[in-house]
Amino acid sequence: MGRAHRESYGGEMSTAASMVFYCLVFIAEILMFGVLSLVLFWVVHYRGGFAWREDVKLEFNYHPVLMITGFIFCMGHAMLVYRLFRCCNKLTAKILHTFLYLLAVPCIVVSTIAVFDSHNLRDPPIPNLYSLHSWLGVITIGLFGLQLVVGFFSFWLLLCCEHGTAKFRAGLVPVHATFGIVTFMLAIATAVTGYTEKALFTLKSDYSKFVDETWVINAQAACLAALAILMGFLLYSSRYARVGTQAVAIVEPPSSSHYVMTQKTYYYREHE
Amino acid sequence: MGRAHRESYGGEMSTAASMVFYCLVFIAEILMFGVLSLVLFWVVHYRGGFAWREDVKLEFNYHPVLMITGFIFCMGHAMLVYRLFRCCNKLTAKILHTFLYLLAVPCIVVSTIAVFDSHNLRDPPIPNLYSLHSWLGVITIGLFGLQLVVGFFSFWLLLCCEHGTAKFRAGLVPVHATFGIVTFMLAIATAVTGYTEKALFTLKSDYSKFVDETWVINAQAACLAALAILMGFLLYSSRYARVGTQAVAIVEPPSSSHYVMTQKTYYYREHE
Repeated sequence: MGRAHRESYGGEMSTAASMVFYCLVFIAEILMFGVLSLVLFWVVHYRGGFAWREDVKLEFNYHPVLMITGFIFCMGHAMLVYRLFRCCNKLTAKILHTFLYLLAVPCIVVSTIAVFDSHNLRDPPIPNLYSLHSWLGVITIGLFGLQLVVGFFSFWLLLCCEHGTAKFRAGLVPVHATFGIVTFMLAIATAVTGYTEKALFTLKSDYSKFVDETWVINAQAACLAALAILMGFLLYSSRYARVGTQAVAIVEPPSSSHYVMTQKTYYYREHE
Repeated sequence: MGRAHRESYGGEMSTAASMVFYCLVFIAEILMFGVLSLVLFWVVHYRGGFAWREDVKLEFNYHPVLMITGFIFCMGHAMLVYRLFRCCNKLTAKILHTFLYLLAVPCIVVSTIAVFDSHNLRDPPIPNLYSLHSWLGVITIGLFGLQLVVGFFSFWLLLCCEHGTAKFRAGLVPVHATFGIVTFMLAIATAVTGYTEKALFTLKSDYSKFVDETWVINAQAACLAALAILMGFLLYSSRYARVGTQAVAIVEPPSSSHYVMTQKTYYYREHE
């Protein structure tokens, strides 16, 4: 398995499974582009657009847009890379995954600066980190950072000693993948609390009167919920996992009745 | 595989993995009992306790307590059954899983009645289903119902024709499991938006002043985030899955160099 990341991993799904898979990926893409468009439309059309420190109320608007860009759009695509790029070798997929994940970093950093500024530079200042949205945000950013460190550590090990560290790196994969989807789910949970706060702070009683902005805000939450369901299914359902991540590969039974087993571990499955 | 649900599935983890597993389950139990105790303490100590339609403000208090009981406590335990009860046969685990899942149903029904009452019987009434919390709630309850239907359909098929439906039922398992954890994650996302709404509606500007209730509400959200991480890891990490759910079982390589293969499909894994 030492050089497994240089192998391609295409073609293991049936045609029907492929069609369902690409259909689901297409819907996920619509949802990811949809939520990004909606948050931009919301901020520009209803919340006055963007500014930096000259207008801290508008500086805040970078926060939802960049957090959705980083945590949902970039991270969502980074996770889908391992499901989508079946025609490439694993190293290409790893580099693309890392690139998309790294794209999220400046978004998250600038977005965090924007929200602290919009609290600290107000007159009077708004306290920081009091709400459960901010607590969830700290946990989510912490997990994101941890994933980044684990990913780089694993990649650094790969560059240092590809063969000797293969077993250790393979052991990290399911943990890294599990924490990845959990981080994505927590990012969604954090986002919907953020939307709730903003809706109640700015729309106040208008929120319950089904004004246009109510629909725009709720539509973003609905998109995020749909993404949670779809991405959960696409990333966790083993039927869409590439063969390279699974422990077993099919060996055709020999036509003769004799078969020499040497230094391999053998597995069998009874027909269900 | 037709009678696989009558087999036990214990003893496949190493001692070290078992220790880590039971430690994580213990923490998950602390968090589930913790969030249930916290929500009860919060409602009784800060929100005036319970009443039915004679006081709709207090009737609302059933909503958070029963939703946490149903979606987090009962559903969380129902999902853990398949990881925990390795000493029983699968049918016992299935019945316990169904029992715990069914326990959640009255909680969710009464909780939904309570929240609709607390909107409709107010003077003036509060509109229903306007907030993103309610939209997320509808999606989560929908998924919960779908899971219930799929679970019963599968169990009914098992009773009708155990052997003939085994392959179909086995195909449902990963879908049911994936949607289960996604429903749990969405329930957490819905809960934290609910806490945010309640905190802003009742505490108003006191929420940002770190009053005692701020800590009690935020602690519940932090427990839920920790549960999302832990349950995500326990339920998705294949290292804690029972062998019966995996496709392969180890066959020791024969000591002789000859081995007769008959009507089985064989798989192999190279040593990593």
